[in-house]
Amino acid sequence: MSEAAQTLDGWYSLHDLRAMNWTAWKELSSDERQEAIQEFHQFLNKLNETQEKKEGSHALYTIVGQKADFILWMLRPTMEELNDLENEFNKLTIAEYTIPTYSYVSVVELSNYVGGGESNEDPYENPYVKSRLYPILPKSKYICFYPMDKRREGNDNWYMLSMDERRELMRSHGMIGRKYAGKVKQIITGSVGLDDYEWGVTLFSDDMLQFKKLVYEMRFDEVSARYGEFGSFFVGNLLEDDNIAKFLHVN
Amino acid sequence: MSEAAQTLDGWYSLHDLRAMNWTAWKELSSDERQEAIQEFHQFLNKLNETQEKKEGSHALYTIVGQKADFILWMLRPTMEELNDLENEFNKLTIAEYTIPTYSYVSVVELSNYVGGGESNEDPYENPYVKSRLYPILPKSKYICFYPMDKRREGNDNWYMLSMDERRELMRSHGMIGRKYAGKVKQIITGSVGLDDYEWGVTLFSDDMLQFKKLVYEMRFDEVSARYGEFGSFFVGNLLEDDNIAKFLHVN
Amino acid sequence: MSEAAQTLDGWYSLHDLRAMNWTAWKELSSDERQEAIQEFHQFLNKLNETQEKKEGSHALYTIVGQKADFILWMLRPTMEELNDLENEFNKLTIAEYTIPTYSYVSVVELSNYVGGGESNEDPYENPYVKSRLYPILPKSKYICFYPMDKRREGNDNWYMLSMDERRELMRSHGMIGRKYAGKVKQIITGSVGLDDYEWGVTLFSDDMLQFKKLVYEMRFDEVSARYGEFGSFFVGNLLEDDNIAKFLHVN
Amino acid sequence: MSEAAQTLDGWYSLHDLRAMNWTAWKELSSDERQEAIQEFHQFLNKLNETQEKKEGSHALYTIVGQKADFILWMLRPTMEELNDLENEFNKLTIAEYTIPTYSYVSVVELSNYVGGGESNEDPYENPYVKSRLYPILPKSKYICFYPMDKRREGNDNWYMLSMDERRELMRSHGMIGRKYAGKVKQIITGSVGLDDYEWGVTLFSDDMLQFKKLVYEMRFDEVSARYGEFGSFFVGNLLEDDNIAKFLHVN
Amino acid sequence: MSEAAQTLDGWYSLHDLRAMNWTAWKELSSDERQEAIQEFHQFLNKLNETQEKKEGSHALYTIVGQKADFILWMLRPTMEELNDLENEFNKLTIAEYTIPTYSYVSVVELSNYVGGGESNEDPYENPYVKSRLYPILPKSKYICFYPMDKRREGNDNWYMLSMDERRELMRSHGMIGRKYAGKVKQIITGSVGLDDYEWGVTLFSDDMLQFKKLVYEMRFDEVSARYGEFGSFFVGNLLEDDNIAKFLHVN
Repeated sequence: MSEAAQTLDGWYSLHDLRAMNWTAWKELSSDERQEAIQEFHQFLNKLNETQEKKEGSHALYTIVGQKADFILWMLRPTMEELNDLENEFNKLTIAEYTIPTYSYVSVVELSNYVGGGESNEDPYENPYVKSRLYPILPKSKYICFYPMDKRREGNDNWYMLSMDERRELMRSHGMIGRKYAGKVKQIITGSVGLDDYEWGVTLFSDDMLQFKKLVYEMRFDEVSARYGEFGSFFVGNLLEDDNIAKFLHVN
Repeated sequence: MSEAAQTLDGWYSLHDLRAMNWTAWKELSSDERQEAIQEFHQFLNKLNETQEKKEGSHALYTIVGQKADFILWMLRPTMEELNDLENEFNKLTIAEYTIPTYSYVSVVELSNYVGGGESNEDPYENPYVKSRLYPILPKSKYICFYPMDKRREGNDNWYMLSMDERRELMRSHGMIGRKYAGKVKQIITGSVGLDDYEWGVTLFSDDMLQFKKLVYEMRFDEVSARYGEFGSFFVGNLLEDDNIAKFLHVN
Repeated sequence: MSEAAQTLDGWYSLHDLRAMNWTAWKELSSDERQEAIQEFHQFLNKLNETQEKKEGSHALYTIVGQKADFILWMLRPTMEELNDLENEFNKLTIAEYTIPTYSYVSVVELSNYVGGGESNEDPYENPYVKSRLYPILPKSKYICFYPMDKRREGNDNWYMLSMDERRELMRSHGMIGRKYAGKVKQIITGSVGLDDYEWGVTLFSDDMLQFKKLVYEMRFDEVSARYGEFGSFFVGNLLEDDNIAKFLHVN
Repeated sequence: MSEAAQTLDGWYSLHDLRAMNWTAWKELSSDERQEAIQEFHQFLNKLNETQEKKEGSHALYTIVGQKADFILWMLRPTMEELNDLENEFNKLTIAEYTIPTYSYVSVVELSNYVGGGESNEDPYENPYVKSRLYPILPKSKYICFYPMDKRREGNDNWYMLSMDERRELMRSHGMIGRKYAGKVKQIITGSVGLDDYEWGVTLFSDDMLQFKKLVYEMRFDEVSARYGEFGSFFVGNLLEDDNIAKFLHVN
Repeated sequence: MSEAAQTLDGWYSLHDLRAMNWTAWKELSSDERQEAIQEFHQFLNKLNETQEKKEGSHALYTIVGQKADFILWMLRPTMEELNDLENEFNKLTIAEYTIPTYSYVSVVELSNYVGGGESNEDPYENPYVKSRLYPILPKSKYICFYPMDKRREGNDNWYMLSMDERRELMRSHGMIGRKYAGKVKQIITGSVGLDDYEWGVTLFSDDMLQFKKLVYEMRFDEVSARYGEFGSFFVGNLLEDDNIAKFLHVN
């Protein structure tokens, strides 16, 4: 058997994607909608407070196309907290006017493919590692989220490669990523044993085109070309708290 | 033809996963909800009594993400009893406010890949075997459930391997599992001829990360890497009887 | 091109699987439910009369798990009769409280892989053959139904094998089946050109475990291991006419 | 690149499959149902008139099993006419009580694989060719419809074969079809670029078993065995105008 | 790793496909429907104004078959504008009577496979390139839309080919396309990292048959035969503003 990669694991993660049931939402009175929006803001304020205390983080973006209308991505130290937030959201009035379209359960992950030698240091005490395992999510203009697997098919079986082969492949793969440093921020969450794909990839950028350029360039790299299996791609625009009322406004 | 593995078969098993229809649930009056919760508790009390008599077992956990809101896993000596319980649950008031999202029919299974030589003893009389075929499910903090197949595809065809090859592969696979002894409790249920996948795997742990570590490490083992086909993964938190009211509480 | 197998074809077959809409069913008054059950019994009595005249047969079983709540399997000499029965059922009151979840259209089939030499006898006049082409379905305790294909994929292409290769493979496959004689009754229905899979397999037994043992043992046989593609598996318990009221009873 | 087959293309085609919403249909008053049936007859009369003028054709059959309750197959000289008919049907009262379950957009097609040498004649002026490109659909007792692809997978890639290889394979394939002349009428519609599969196959016969025999025999032919990919199969019984009232009758 | 193709990227693109809920639409009063149509016209007028200013473009076509009733394709300089339009449409009265059936998010794309040498010119300043990156969509009679991938499977892995191999294959592929110049207008939109397939292909023609001929001829070309993976195909007829009232007219 091949040697398994070692991972460092940070906050637990829930990507929660919803479509709006606009028809039902419009049937509410203007006052009822205002109350629902107000209640949603209270929920988000609570998330903001947790984030300010660095005890978790979250991101709210619209999603373009019919796959969803918005994504709420939440990070927390435990699965219980995530589950509580999910249930709290589900019990909000606004949730009655949303249709669940996709969700993803995972945990922020760093792997040992890339990265320095083995030191005696506890990596969980390393400030850089900590900033990546417990990230405060950026307020970039755009988000891109997709789940993925490493292929196990005939001669293209990632998990039958030796650790050295995988490390070498991941090294060159990482070099593409590095070209996009400053343009795209990437957060990997691991979901082996937690959800249907093996990883979730979430990208942030102020230039939507960089998502396409990065993913396309990587696709020619052997790690993706031979070993990547991709789920659905979701892209959207930052939905700032101040714009929620506008997003939800109907006549 | 290859020699088939021999199995020992214990209690029949139904994994029943449900999403809550929170919108409809909120439309009930507070009293109606209380009655429904009360009725659900009576149903669970009956399950508890059966479990105390060791005539079956069950587990109730929330599920994180949109794939379900909770799982009720039930074990019983006969398929008729399971079916009766399923129908009894379906006729409860609370069931009207749930949406079936997945279920799995199987039977607790031990295989002869791992395990001692052939003795004259009736394995069904062996106390250790009995404790595994008729398990009282633990109250661990976390659950992980997924169905799986052994692959039959081109050169990666599990069922064309000889018994010796399979036994050797399973032996090394089992050694990974053994590393997690004390951290993860694993119960295998067989479903060939009973449901769409061939096995259901249910893991219990007090540390959610161990699910990820175990499944990920196993994925590099040839049994999974070349021969494993996985269905959906469901993870969640223990839902103790005392917390049901809180879980179902809405304003 | 390979020589096609010859088949003998008996009664046309419709497997009709339904989930109950318990919520809507409970909204009826007790009297309305009684009337609906009464009407359902009248329909079943008609089926029973046809069966007594040996002009068709049927079986009614519950199904365990969320894939369906019951299966009504009907056999008739013509597709028109089947279609009429299907529509008659659909127009019953009880049908309004069911949700169609799966159906299968086929015809009872015997193939020439197994079986004696070519005689001058008209096989359709042979009493044994007739009893298998026009079977009165047993009242066994359990049912197992699944559709299947023979694989056509790369080097595992059943339809590119010669008649001799297929006959030899089927012969050894049939020998496994014969080991279960007396324990499991198997009825094969052919559906090439009639439904999405190529065959439907329906098993009856008084011991649910025999389904698992039979299907699992066969899976190691080359016919299944290399050439079998399986659809969904449905298992359940006999639903005798006397138990329908209990099955449908709600408070 | 391989030489593409040449096709002759006739009338545009829409296979429109619908399930009945019997529950809603029963909620209408008897008079309302009569009016809806009457309106449906007017629509069908219009189709009949077009057919009598040989400016199109259509067929109406019930479908057995849950995949649909009936199929309306319509052929017209332009896609605009088909679309108009589709919309006209959708606006009928009866349409409110149907659930769309499948549809197929294509065009009647003859290919040059089979067929004589290249003559100077305009094939569109050949009476035989015209009768096949602009067919008046028969009133056979049974229909069978399925969409299909030619496989492009590893070594089984139809589109990488030379024209000569394909012509030879199609010739022997056609010879099977010819054995069923007089028993089964086959109409091929091409849908490359128009719908998700590449062809629709519609068979008519007065003997349902001939569908099974034909499709099964062909499956052993290399064209199907190695290169055929099949969608869903739909079979049913002729629904003559005079029987519509009976088909739609409910108490 | 293989060299990635370079792309030029123009307007962002949303293909939005909807089925009509005719039953609900008919329940409106004639006046209410008129108002909804009027409001829809106002929305389209706004799109027309943007198009006249060449700050975007759009196309409205009916779709034949059950996959959708119409497609609204919109092009805009930013993803925010597209998202705003999508939400604006979703909040229209007419949207309450539509059912989302498919959508596609991408960006108009030109690749460097085909095309001249490397000059010093900024291609974004080249008038021909600009006319293709920021196209005013034609009012052709017919539309054909489908998403597609380049295959990565065993020996048929597009992304493992060298740039030279890919350029040569694309050159001959492009030559087929050129044969249809004047008959079919093709617009490619790239969606790697933006949606589930890698490209969207939208064809316009005044002759529906040309879609079939073009796609069929290309399928024999190695680029499609070995490396093309296709999603759903949608075809339909131009829906001019003047015909919307007729399209939506019900009694």
